[in-house]
Amino acid sequence: MTNKKEIIAGIIIIGNEVLSGRTKDLNTSTLSIWLNSLGIKVLEVRIIPDIEKIIIDTVNELRNKFNYVFTTGGIGPTHDDITAESISKAFNLEYGFHKEAFSLLEKYYDQGEFNEGRQKMAKMPKTANLILNPTSGAPGFYIENVFCLPGVPSILKSMIGGLNNVLVGGDPILSKTINLRTYESEIAQTLTGVQNNNKEVDIGSYPFFRQGKLGVSIVLRSTDQNKIDNCNSQILEFVKAKNIEIVEID
Amino acid sequence: MTNKKEIIAGIIIIGNEVLSGRTKDLNTSTLSIWLNSLGIKVLEVRIIPDIEKIIIDTVNELRNKFNYVFTTGGIGPTHDDITAESISKAFNLEYGFHKEAFSLLEKYYDQGEFNEGRQKMAKMPKTANLILNPTSGAPGFYIENVFCLPGVPSILKSMIGGLNNVLVGGDPILSKTINLRTYESEIAQTLTGVQNNNKEVDIGSYPFFRQGKLGVSIVLRSTDQNKIDNCNSQILEFVKAKNIEIVEID
Repeated sequence: MTNKKEIIAGIIIIGNEVLSGRTKDLNTSTLSIWLNSLGIKVLEVRIIPDIEKIIIDTVNELRNKFNYVFTTGGIGPTHDDITAESISKAFNLEYGFHKEAFSLLEKYYDQGEFNEGRQKMAKMPKTANLILNPTSGAPGFYIENVFCLPGVPSILKSMIGGLNNVLVGGDPILSKTINLRTYESEIAQTLTGVQNNNKEVDIGSYPFFRQGKLGVSIVLRSTDQNKIDNCNSQILEFVKAKNIEIVEID
Repeated sequence: MTNKKEIIAGIIIIGNEVLSGRTKDLNTSTLSIWLNSLGIKVLEVRIIPDIEKIIIDTVNELRNKFNYVFTTGGIGPTHDDITAESISKAFNLEYGFHKEAFSLLEKYYDQGEFNEGRQKMAKMPKTANLILNPTSGAPGFYIENVFCLPGVPSILKSMIGGLNNVLVGGDPILSKTINLRTYESEIAQTLTGVQNNNKEVDIGSYPFFRQGKLGVSIVLRSTDQNKIDNCNSQILEFVKAKNIEIVEID
């Protein structure tokens, strides 16, 4: 297996409704799982308010730090949707009607329905590339390595597939999860030993509580299936020696 | 009403399991709603990996930027739980057994059950203040303005009440939500006018899809109930004029 270099990404969740606790962020999970499958590792997520200066500064910091940056939220028709204009400013690009986006939306809405609010959704950096929206018409867009998506989870989900051929990933990040009926403290020391013997596998340990019973999920992550398998064998060895019940492996 | 100064907070979610998309972050919502009720506004959330240098740098950046910082995750017994040691380094404080935490845990576990893994949960900055854990024994801790809580949502929830008398908040942030049967684009322009006339109320607009029907939630947020009520009246005026159905107000 050739060793491609690691491709890393940051996510910026834009929205007062997430910071206030009113809305739970579901987009990080969707984006991370999808990006992992493309061999892109998410290294940082920031949740920030609808404040222009903060959006500009965060985008400019993260786009220099990561191969890819994904923003969610703030591209709708209302006054609090300021992502597109802020991104234009971050890149020093002209903000205005994007010809292709305008014409897409004009066709999407019935005659007389393409009002000023809806027209605003065609405003973005005029030279942006569009991200098509099969659910509700209004496209997202990208400039260089920054991809701007909507905040509504179901719409975001329907749009990301369109980027599979645009993004260039590394080796896909593989994982295996071993669910055990035990306590973290029972296996902590042995697991530390396994981690020390398997430096290239990222071993996570997470307690769970399901159907009234406690357990521990051990998650192995690596781009190399052999390394995961070796590590898995070492874990199953001590699980057997300690007589720990295996709930499931997937 | 006296105008106290705004008290702001940052949240740091520590954990590869959230960045990988495996686990959805529920703690931001819990912490934000609770902090709002104390008059503390969350202005930024960062989700970061279990990497010591990143934890140290993020904690040091945010503790200088915000009145309070809350971390979640990484204080359990396994090798990937490195928050307590990282926080010690961020503050240049000695990491080791915390006397009170050790004695708490020693009492919590039955004789012979207080093994090395569990003892690790008593390790933290030796001079930290404890945050008691009524659910599972192992305490959180705080140093100056940085509060370290566990990642398991139910345990975190059971611990935060103990901090109500430690944190000093500003005026509580009040809110009113008006749910309308309309599209954002139908009200965008009028709402912009209302926002311009009510600069001290933060007006958010969020589309929703419930029981097969689309709608828009307008959320008004301010520390001043009168200002929210005035703004609410202006919105109800145009809602009536435009003949828009009100789903509910709360």
